[in-house]
Amino acid sequence: MMLRVKRLGIDTCHETVAFLARRCPLYRAQEFVALARIEISGGGRRIVATLNIVDDESIMAADELGLSSLAHRQLGLPDGTPVEIAQAAPPASLDHVRAKIDGAVLPPEAYHEIVRDLAAHRYSKMEIAAFLVAASRFTTAPEVLSMTRAMAAVGGRLNWDSDVIVDKHCIGGIPGNRTSMIVVPIVAAHGLKIPKTSSRAITSPAGTADTMEVLAQVDLGADAMREIVAAENGCLVWGGHANLSPADDVLISVERPLSIDTPEQMVASILSKKLAAGSTHLVLDLPVGPTAKLRHQDSFVRLRKLFEYIADQVGIQAAVLRTDGSQPVGRGIGPWLEARDVLQVLEGDPAAPRDLREHALLLAGHILEFDPALRGGRGIARARELLENGAALARMRRIMAAQGPPPAAAALGARSHDVAAPRDGVVTAIDCLRLSRVARLAGAPLDKGAGVDLFKKVGDPVAQGEPLYRIHAELEADFRFACGFAAEASGFTVASLP
Amino acid sequence: MMLRVKRLGIDTCHETVAFLARRCPLYRAQEFVALARIEISGGGRRIVATLNIVDDESIMAADELGLSSLAHRQLGLPDGTPVEIAQAAPPASLDHVRAKIDGAVLPPEAYHEIVRDLAAHRYSKMEIAAFLVAASRFTTAPEVLSMTRAMAAVGGRLNWDSDVIVDKHCIGGIPGNRTSMIVVPIVAAHGLKIPKTSSRAITSPAGTADTMEVLAQVDLGADAMREIVAAENGCLVWGGHANLSPADDVLISVERPLSIDTPEQMVASILSKKLAAGSTHLVLDLPVGPTAKLRHQDSFVRLRKLFEYIADQVGIQAAVLRTDGSQPVGRGIGPWLEARDVLQVLEGDPAAPRDLREHALLLAGHILEFDPALRGGRGIARARELLENGAALARMRRIMAAQGPPPAAAALGARSHDVAAPRDGVVTAIDCLRLSRVARLAGAPLDKGAGVDLFKKVGDPVAQGEPLYRIHAELEADFRFACGFAAEASGFTVASLP
Repeated sequence: MMLRVKRLGIDTCHETVAFLARRCPLYRAQEFVALARIEISGGGRRIVATLNIVDDESIMAADELGLSSLAHRQLGLPDGTPVEIAQAAPPASLDHVRAKIDGAVLPPEAYHEIVRDLAAHRYSKMEIAAFLVAASRFTTAPEVLSMTRAMAAVGGRLNWDSDVIVDKHCIGGIPGNRTSMIVVPIVAAHGLKIPKTSSRAITSPAGTADTMEVLAQVDLGADAMREIVAAENGCLVWGGHANLSPADDVLISVERPLSIDTPEQMVASILSKKLAAGSTHLVLDLPVGPTAKLRHQDSFVRLRKLFEYIADQVGIQAAVLRTDGSQPVGRGIGPWLEARDVLQVLEGDPAAPRDLREHALLLAGHILEFDPALRGGRGIARARELLENGAALARMRRIMAAQGPPPAAAALGARSHDVAAPRDGVVTAIDCLRLSRVARLAGAPLDKGAGVDLFKKVGDPVAQGEPLYRIHAELEADFRFACGFAAEASGFTVASLP
Repeated sequence: MMLRVKRLGIDTCHETVAFLARRCPLYRAQEFVALARIEISGGGRRIVATLNIVDDESIMAADELGLSSLAHRQLGLPDGTPVEIAQAAPPASLDHVRAKIDGAVLPPEAYHEIVRDLAAHRYSKMEIAAFLVAASRFTTAPEVLSMTRAMAAVGGRLNWDSDVIVDKHCIGGIPGNRTSMIVVPIVAAHGLKIPKTSSRAITSPAGTADTMEVLAQVDLGADAMREIVAAENGCLVWGGHANLSPADDVLISVERPLSIDTPEQMVASILSKKLAAGSTHLVLDLPVGPTAKLRHQDSFVRLRKLFEYIADQVGIQAAVLRTDGSQPVGRGIGPWLEARDVLQVLEGDPAAPRDLREHALLLAGHILEFDPALRGGRGIARARELLENGAALARMRRIMAAQGPPPAAAALGARSHDVAAPRDGVVTAIDCLRLSRVARLAGAPLDKGAGVDLFKKVGDPVAQGEPLYRIHAELEADFRFACGFAAEASGFTVASLP
């Protein structure tokens, strides 16, 4: 007699969970509780899951073994299949984590084993946290290299016909900084291959994939991507289908709630994805500012050196740029508003936000200098030329057409509220974290048209009562949350003029 | 319109979990996923829980908020009560954990805040793991002191009329080492107060509470305990009702699965419980051996010094003993078998295991020397006298009678199997971990009569085929597991005689 598998409609978010009835006639749930993890085997398959105990037999019968969505998918057996359970031995690679906790420097093979187990969801969330914290205290550059290679080796890979595949990446944290959608068409128009995969927002109000989706389909597989890049030199798609560095997603599911964001993890995360994506040349955008991820020159230099060392070792030519992270870039925060800014820049609209345009030109210029014909500082002039002569806009239109129409028409959120200046004076600071949170509470990125539209930037004079920014939302509850949060503190510092 | 609370019969083992329907009309589950933790408020109450998402509306309706057993108990509101949810700010004390990850030495107040949040179940398991790993890398003795005091301050406290309350504690890991049940009646018979609270087994085949429960009721509250100690000077009860150092139980729920067992955590855990239990004098039993928790003299000395320093600072007089942890103590492993050994020792049965008797006399002797009249090494002679003249047995019978009869009669497990010597020779080693595991698989401590009965110890000559030990089990499945595991490797090393 064995337990029968039952898929429970419970999504436990990146952790495999199994449910055993307390009154199970075959196993005593209590025996398994202390070590929390069980091994499930049957039909030639075997997975490990965290155990929950079920007292209510309307959820599942006593002789069933309930599985969370992820566990069910991983085990891959239909409901009713007989399975056995046993106390799970912890993943073998956890010995390496224990060695790391004790202060060891781990060899490359240890990182390969850890990453394989992470990607296969063999670690519980507390085990992932143990690894992250142990590694965050003390990781050598060669270990970051091992980790990067291990992460790139697990999961999908993109292969390209060209010897030069350029890419850009920003470490994030600055709302409105949607430069990829300007950089890609400029670079593609010049003739370099730039197959850009982007993420959706996890905790920010918009990722590039969310914003591009206002203008075009982004949910494309590797074959479609290859076709588009062959024809247009560039694309702007969501990276999810490529399954690049899946261990990174598992780590992120614990890094975010714990707010652990070390240089070592950042470098391994970004470069493993670029390596798997087949990038050969990379410009890295590292904004520095009082509310950015990097707050001081020291942290910038430390991160830059680590990026340069690892990129060099894995054979990626990288240019690391320090950029202005003192305030949001552009005016819009949220997918629809950011797409509007991007189009204004591409269209040469006089209303286009100047900082977004200049920031994008700087990055595009550095990428163009990977072209031997443009070395020695001539990249930015070429980028400006391609933007001003309409070539970038034309290329963007072709990329949008090639990717197909967006899955749904987006419009600006119907509810709006202006946040006003508390006094006459001048804007001296804008808190990136707070403005992101307002936009997020307003419903971005789930509602494309939700977010924040900035009317003032640092240095602008304001009169008391004059609007600083406008909140847009779709849903009443979100609107209330966002306005309430902005009312507590707007995120703007307005200093009286002397 | 608000969500309505619903208790789901799901026990998530020391973590508060809430369940939100993916199709919830009030909140978008997706918005809360990335940071995993939500705050639930309603009816003047407020708790934090980890979020799971439910796709199956037979488990709960779309406008309900499901709660795990622990979350439901903590919130303390009846089903149907309207509640609101919001993204939870992480517990404020997590800032201290981040500082610890960054290598800071934390002040006492930081430990008080962390421990309060731990005890209130405000930490998710990954947050607990982050704290444990950060602390395990580097914790100063003053920090261990802060942690110990903080842990003792949260939860219940026992108060006694006497100035001298003696206690003993073993760090565990050696099967069969059931000395408390011999030490307590000896010490009580002499006239010192020894109100012993013990734990049930978490991952071992028996805790003292499990074994004492073969002979008497152990599930007693503080008042009953006080009465019994007033009359008999001692008791042997389960410590659960006293709720001593509840943060420790929360930490253990993560330490065990991660196998994190640092000296610092061990000292804070043990001494916080002793402090809360009102102990003034303590003998600590630290077994050292190749398969014990302490494997080398170095680790013993490090742990001893930390115990002595912290005990001194919190005002507990402690004597720390290095004992023989090279093999199991006594013959029985599992509650019924260990209770048998204990009674044989108390009854002066010639068949009584000598090592258990001598080990108990050593510990009792050191405790008795806390009596000024017995200082200078005369404790052990007095302990032997009280054991040999029947005073200890008489006292044990009175304590058993005072605690009341056991909740159920226990008997030796009906299924049995002998594990035989593979060759003629002599036993040179017995693996404590492996023998514990055999007994645990056989059903101990859930089945009182399950476990292992040792016929041979280190140094004993054996003939090929002669039984080394007997496995006892109640349930067929357990019996098969235990015999199978013992067949892979018995845990005995038998060396051929030259």
